[in-house]
Amino acid sequence: MIPLGFRLGGARCGLKNKKNDIGLLVSDVPARAAGVFTTNLVRASCVDFSRRAVQTGSLRGVVVNSGNANCCTGAAGERDTAEMAALAESLGGGPFAVASTGVIGHPMPMEKVRKGIPEAFGRLGTDPKPFLEAILTTDLVEKWAATAVGGADLAAARQPEVTLGPGPRLFGMAKGSGMIAPNMATMLGFVISDADVSGFDLPALVRRVADRTFNRCLVDGDTSTNDMLLVLANGLAGPVSEAAFEGALAEVCDALARQIARDGEGATKLVEVCVRGSADPLTVARTIALSPLVKTAMFGCDPNWGRIVAAAGRAEVHFCVADVTLDVAGFRLFEHGAPTDFDPKKVSAALKSDTVRIDLFLGPGPEATVYTCDFGYGYVRINAEYHT
Amino acid sequence: MIPLGFRLGGARCGLKNKKNDIGLLVSDVPARAAGVFTTNLVRASCVDFSRRAVQTGSLRGVVVNSGNANCCTGAAGERDTAEMAALAESLGGGPFAVASTGVIGHPMPMEKVRKGIPEAFGRLGTDPKPFLEAILTTDLVEKWAATAVGGADLAAARQPEVTLGPGPRLFGMAKGSGMIAPNMATMLGFVISDADVSGFDLPALVRRVADRTFNRCLVDGDTSTNDMLLVLANGLAGPVSEAAFEGALAEVCDALARQIARDGEGATKLVEVCVRGSADPLTVARTIALSPLVKTAMFGCDPNWGRIVAAAGRAEVHFCVADVTLDVAGFRLFEHGAPTDFDPKKVSAALKSDTVRIDLFLGPGPEATVYTCDFGYGYVRINAEYHT
Repeated sequence: MIPLGFRLGGARCGLKNKKNDIGLLVSDVPARAAGVFTTNLVRASCVDFSRRAVQTGSLRGVVVNSGNANCCTGAAGERDTAEMAALAESLGGGPFAVASTGVIGHPMPMEKVRKGIPEAFGRLGTDPKPFLEAILTTDLVEKWAATAVGGADLAAARQPEVTLGPGPRLFGMAKGSGMIAPNMATMLGFVISDADVSGFDLPALVRRVADRTFNRCLVDGDTSTNDMLLVLANGLAGPVSEAAFEGALAEVCDALARQIARDGEGATKLVEVCVRGSADPLTVARTIALSPLVKTAMFGCDPNWGRIVAAAGRAEVHFCVADVTLDVAGFRLFEHGAPTDFDPKKVSAALKSDTVRIDLFLGPGPEATVYTCDFGYGYVRINAEYHT
Repeated sequence: MIPLGFRLGGARCGLKNKKNDIGLLVSDVPARAAGVFTTNLVRASCVDFSRRAVQTGSLRGVVVNSGNANCCTGAAGERDTAEMAALAESLGGGPFAVASTGVIGHPMPMEKVRKGIPEAFGRLGTDPKPFLEAILTTDLVEKWAATAVGGADLAAARQPEVTLGPGPRLFGMAKGSGMIAPNMATMLGFVISDADVSGFDLPALVRRVADRTFNRCLVDGDTSTNDMLLVLANGLAGPVSEAAFEGALAEVCDALARQIARDGEGATKLVEVCVRGSADPLTVARTIALSPLVKTAMFGCDPNWGRIVAAAGRAEVHFCVADVTLDVAGFRLFEHGAPTDFDPKKVSAALKSDTVRIDLFLGPGPEATVYTCDFGYGYVRINAEYHT
């Protein structure tokens, strides 16, 4: 299932309960790499470390831990991040990026990590499951997506002695919008590919894709201290067109972003907010997706068009109310600035679905879609009932 | 208690259950007036109507209803707002402003309103209670604040035949951050005074005070369609200095803003967020105050410094993490970029207080304070369990 020349592993070293908490991702050969990192000013040392690591354009692998974010841990935290990378590099060659997720403000228990990394290294293989488990915190489900790159030129593969699949592939893994008790969430995403991307401006391509996918996934607006997306492509399955690779990467990242929103804390459903028209439909969509009033209405299966239209109205983006039309779960609730005579019971029944789509039309123009989830008692329970 | 020459009244005409839903505020003589209005693009017709009304610089009174926001109601809604003003003016002289709060998208039941306005007019008096009741929606408590203007020159009062109190006074009334089932919240504020403000730029003064008070009160970030603050000063108690009037108005509006935050939906406490330092402490304070992670931690009495520091970090305002110091409820949790060795149980006990203060120091510089509330099951219950 995973691309050629990559191996994944996981181990449990005691950073969190009962599950793998150290993950290793290794390429047999150096892979071209690029990343996108949290914009939070308060960020873990692994964020700065991995940003520098990918600036060389190449990575051999990534070492990940869950259960401790190694954030707000000062100079000791920086040393621990560097030691994690050095330990992985001593086993698998370099350079390695580091990603941590979990509680912030606690020193990394390095005596555990020093055992966990070699153990994960000894278990490297092609089954992604131990790694997928190792990156989770309060996530309820493992999140992955795979695709093949369209239009791959297999004949031109650089290393034909390797048994090729039907074409260069991408395999993406993410952890999402759970928060580790008692502190921050982290979104981590890793996409590996055996495509040869050596002719591309990979950092720019990854940035474009992240803007269209992970950056359109909103759970509570609380940007984490540890967010990181890393893309590694080792070229073993040969060249692809840049457009095809970008399309495939977007497909994988879009699928992961939807999974993250669906698994948001306390979420009972995925909510897709699609806005068409105005000069900035993305800002309008984001404002709706983060509105506590809209999100609680979605939790309550309440066809509350007023909250959606009013959230749009406070987005500081110009539109004419008389032009506004709104569909929720396929029902037209608001048309040309006035509510329709819809049947609330029918719409409410449709809102019980696992996925709900909100379509807001503000006029002609571009379209933007973001993913979010509903907001119910579960969010409060997860985030209020744990004590530091 | 209320300033000279003002009368207040309320009546119940059936727009909401069991409580007064029509309020009248009348000055015996034309009062200088200014207002601040919602910035939401989707706004009720009363907002546009009252903005035009105060542009004349003078009002005779305000007619208010709760139970129906008269928003997204098209041309009929505009006619209904104008008729409400005309009816009040036929009884009390003009001009009148109109403020509505309640469910949006429903036509105003004018047959009820046409009975309610004369009834409220017949009951005008100096007891503010019937008016205070008439402006509430899901608010749990009536909100008012009163003060005298310091440094008033009583001898110069323009109408010495009126029995003067100890000096010009201000009396403020507000309704807050409850949402009327099933739709939007509105913040309404009315401040009346018998001070003579004829030499002042009242609109600019009111704008300055609103920016420092009501605009620093955040419950869920969902700017309403009907928000309105109106200030009326009829001059009957004589002149005051502009600085003294502005100080007294700020005192009243600050007290009302705190009451609104404390009575936020589902709130168990008022949370004051005070940020000092950085180029824009207000933006940092607002980001912390709206963070669902911070608000759920406050609900859970969890001394979760990580969420507060991380929320500051995503505010897009520059500061150095190594300079950051954080006090919560008077306990130092974070100092110079690292957590302290605080006792979580003691801090948690202090967080059970009715009012909690968060003090974040980012360095030398200006300070900004905002008011918010915690975020618990009550918010979800109020906003998810009602069906449109």
